[in-house]
Amino acid sequence: MSTPETTPDDTDAQTETDTDAEMDLTTTAGGFACKIDAADLETYLEAYATLVDEMKLNITPEGFTARAVDPANVAMIDETLPADRFEHYSSTGGTIGFNLDRLLNILGMAETGDRAELELDQETRKLQIQLGGLSYTLALIDPDSIRAEPDIPELDLAAEATITGAQFDRGLTAVDMITDHLTLRVGETDDGEEALVIEGEGDTDDVDLELTGEECLGLAGVDSEAESLFSLDFLKDMNKAIPKSTEVTLRFDDEHPVMIEFDALPNDDDGELPVRFMLAPRIKSE
Amino acid sequence: MSTPETTPDDTDAQTETDTDAEMDLTTTAGGFACKIDAADLETYLEAYATLVDEMKLNITPEGFTARAVDPANVAMIDETLPADRFEHYSSTGGTIGFNLDRLLNILGMAETGDRAELELDQETRKLQIQLGGLSYTLALIDPDSIRAEPDIPELDLAAEATITGAQFDRGLTAVDMITDHLTLRVGETDDGEEALVIEGEGDTDDVDLELTGEECLGLAGVDSEAESLFSLDFLKDMNKAIPKSTEVTLRFDDEHPVMIEFDALPNDDDGELPVRFMLAPRIKSE
Amino acid sequence: MSTPETTPDDTDAQTETDTDAEMDLTTTAGGFACKIDAADLETYLEAYATLVDEMKLNITPEGFTARAVDPANVAMIDETLPADRFEHYSSTGGTIGFNLDRLLNILGMAETGDRAELELDQETRKLQIQLGGLSYTLALIDPDSIRAEPDIPELDLAAEATITGAQFDRGLTAVDMITDHLTLRVGETDDGEEALVIEGEGDTDDVDLELTGEECLGLAGVDSEAESLFSLDFLKDMNKAIPKSTEVTLRFDDEHPVMIEFDALPNDDDGELPVRFMLAPRIKSE
Repeated sequence: MSTPETTPDDTDAQTETDTDAEMDLTTTAGGFACKIDAADLETYLEAYATLVDEMKLNITPEGFTARAVDPANVAMIDETLPADRFEHYSSTGGTIGFNLDRLLNILGMAETGDRAELELDQETRKLQIQLGGLSYTLALIDPDSIRAEPDIPELDLAAEATITGAQFDRGLTAVDMITDHLTLRVGETDDGEEALVIEGEGDTDDVDLELTGEECLGLAGVDSEAESLFSLDFLKDMNKAIPKSTEVTLRFDDEHPVMIEFDALPNDDDGELPVRFMLAPRIKSE
Repeated sequence: MSTPETTPDDTDAQTETDTDAEMDLTTTAGGFACKIDAADLETYLEAYATLVDEMKLNITPEGFTARAVDPANVAMIDETLPADRFEHYSSTGGTIGFNLDRLLNILGMAETGDRAELELDQETRKLQIQLGGLSYTLALIDPDSIRAEPDIPELDLAAEATITGAQFDRGLTAVDMITDHLTLRVGETDDGEEALVIEGEGDTDDVDLELTGEECLGLAGVDSEAESLFSLDFLKDMNKAIPKSTEVTLRFDDEHPVMIEFDALPNDDDGELPVRFMLAPRIKSE
Repeated sequence: MSTPETTPDDTDAQTETDTDAEMDLTTTAGGFACKIDAADLETYLEAYATLVDEMKLNITPEGFTARAVDPANVAMIDETLPADRFEHYSSTGGTIGFNLDRLLNILGMAETGDRAELELDQETRKLQIQLGGLSYTLALIDPDSIRAEPDIPELDLAAEATITGAQFDRGLTAVDMITDHLTLRVGETDDGEEALVIEGEGDTDDVDLELTGEECLGLAGVDSEAESLFSLDFLKDMNKAIPKSTEVTLRFDDEHPVMIEFDALPNDDDGELPVRFMLAPRIKSE
C-alpha cells in the first residue's frame, strides 16, 4: 500500500471517518489500490459468480462496476460497489479480468471484520491481495479475452412488485418441487384483491404463491395483467445472491425480460450494494 | 374450504376448543376437507414413507387410517391419525391414493405452527392443499392401482419389552457397525438379571446391547427365552420414524414376526399418533 | 474387570485419586485390562489413523505406545497414551494388532464422559470392549502381519517454530487453494523482522502466511534460513489430528524431514497426550 494505514481493529470508526473525508481518487503508482471489508467484496463478487466464471471488472473513480451476460445470452447482471464503501480507494481507472473462484477462495479465508487490501502490480500484471496475515498473488486475465459486456436495455415494464428476499425464495422453492419453469403474473385473486402470483405448472401438479398488495412491500401495474414465463434454473442461481432480508423489486411485462433489483447488503449502515439482474422470458409452448 | 376459518395464529386455543365441540363429520361438498398442524401430518406420512412410495389413505369418520406392506412382503405398517388431532375434519369416507414424496415435499415448506388445509376436488380428482400462502394441486392416483392393504395378524408373542426410542436406536447403530442382521432376545445376564438383548454377529466381531429389566421401561416373558433374527435394513428404515424420546414396545417370539409399537408424537399434549410396524423374521442359516 | 470399580459419574475425582495411588501394573489373568475416558482413547487412535488402517499397539507398563510409517514410507507417527491417563491400567506387556476403523466406530458410540473398558481374552485372542452398556468383541490381527514399526531418527534441525494449531491450519488451507506442495521457511520479512513463512507456489498464483517472531509462540534458528518443501496431502491428513487450540512445534532444516509435535489433548487437566509426526521432504524440481 502506498499510503500509511492504521490497523482496522483499534481505530475502525476513526479510520472510516478519515477515509470519507480524505478519499484520494488520484492515481497511485500501481494504478490501483484499495482496502475494504473482505465480506463486502465477497458479497459483490458472489452475485457476479452466479452467472459467469471470469470477471471483467471496471475500476472507476466511482467504485467497481461490472456487467456480464451468461454464455447462453439469457441472463445479465449489472452491479456497482461504490467507492465510499472502501476504507481506502485510489484508482486511475481501467479494467481488469480474473478468475472469480480464485479470488472468492482467498476472500473465503477472512474472519469477521478482516480487511482485504488489493493492489495492482502494473509490471507483473498481477493483483496483490493482503488478508488477515496472508499474501496472495493473483494472476490476471486479459479482459479482452473475456466475453464482452452487454448493453442492458432500459425497458418500460408494466408490472412492478417489491417483495422480501424470503418471499422470493419461497416462491422459487415451491415451483422447484414440480417444474423447471416459473410464471410471474399480476392479477386479481378469487377474493378480488390485487396480487403478485409466482406460479409453477407441472405435468400433473400445480403450485402457486399468491402475494396480495398487502403482503407485498409494493405492487403496481396490476391492471396490465402482465404474465411471463422464465427458466427456474437461472432464477435459482440469481437467488443465491439475494439476501432473505433484502427488498427485491421485480419488474416484468407480457413476454418481456424481468428486471430483478435488490441491495445485496441490506443490513449495513454503510450504504447500498445495488445489484440488478435481467432474465429473458421463455416462450410458452402451446 | 367450505367452512369459514379463523386464522390460526391469534385464536388457536379457541379454535381448537370450538372444533372439538362442533366437529362436523358430515359430508362436505367436496367429500373431504380438513385442517391440521402441518408437522403432525408430515410425521404421520413419514412413518408410512419408510416402507412404500405411494400411499393408500382411508379417510374415515375416526380419522386417517392406513396399512401397507413393502414390495418384498417382509415389513408392514398400520397407523392412525385420529380425527381429534385435526382443527377441522369433515369426511364422507373413502380412500385416496397419492405419491408420498410429493405431499411430503409440500409439507416440508411449512414453518413451525403452519396449518395445512386439504380439500378433495371430486370433479378433477385432485387434492387442493393450502399451506402458508401456497396453493398446491396434487394429482391423485387410483387407489386400486396401489398394492392392496395387508391384513396384519394378531399374534400371541411370548416376549414383550418396552424401551426408549434412544435405546432402540443405540442397539441398531451398534449392530450396524458389523453386520446386516439383528437378533432380538430375552434371557438372563451373566449376573442372573432378566434382560432384553439386541445383538449382532459379524464375520469376526460381535456386539450386543444388554438392557436389564431395570434399564427397560417394561420387560415380560423372559422365561420364554424367545429369540429371532431380523433384517437390519428394514429396522433402520422404520427407525427413521421412531422419535428418540418415545416409548417403543417390542413384542417377539422364536422365529416369529416382531411387532414394534410407538407413539410418533410423544411430546404432544393433543393425544397420540400410534404407529405399529411388523417385520417378518429371517431364518438363521446354520 | 478383575478389580471392583465404582461408577464413574458420582465418584470421578475420588476414583482417579485412588487409581493413581493403587495403580496395579502387575500381570492380570487376561494379560491386559484397562479403563479410560472413551474420548481420550478415540483421540489417541485418530492421530494414528491419519497414516495407517491397521494399528500395532504396544501395551507397556508406562502406557500405550505406537509408531508407524505410511505405505509410501514418507510419513511417520510416534505417540504415547500414558498409563496415568487411565482410570485403571494393568498389563504384562505385549503387542496387539487390530483394524483401526472398527475400534474407532465402537468408540464413536460413546457419549460425553463414557468410560471404555478393554480386556484381552488371551484364549480367543479377542479384545473385549465394554462401553455405555454395549459389549463388543473385536478380533485381533497378528501384529507380525502389520508393517514393522519404523525407527524415528533423532535429527539436529536448525529451525524451530511453535505456533497454534489454528495458525498451522490457516497456512495449510491457504496453500491448498493453489497447489499440493507446501514450503516451510524461516527468514526475515520485508520489514526486517524474523518470521516463519508457510508458502505455496501455484502455476500462476502464489500465497504465503508470514508469522513474525511476535506472532509465533516460539521461533529459533532463523539465521539458518532453513527451507524445505513437503507434500500437502500428508500435512492435511496429519492436521486432522491437530487441535486448533494446541501448540504445534515445527522443527525443520534445508531439505530435511520436518518434525511436528503437539499435545492432542491441550485443554485437559489430566496431563498430555503427546504426538509426534515426521514427514520427509520433497525435492524441489528446478
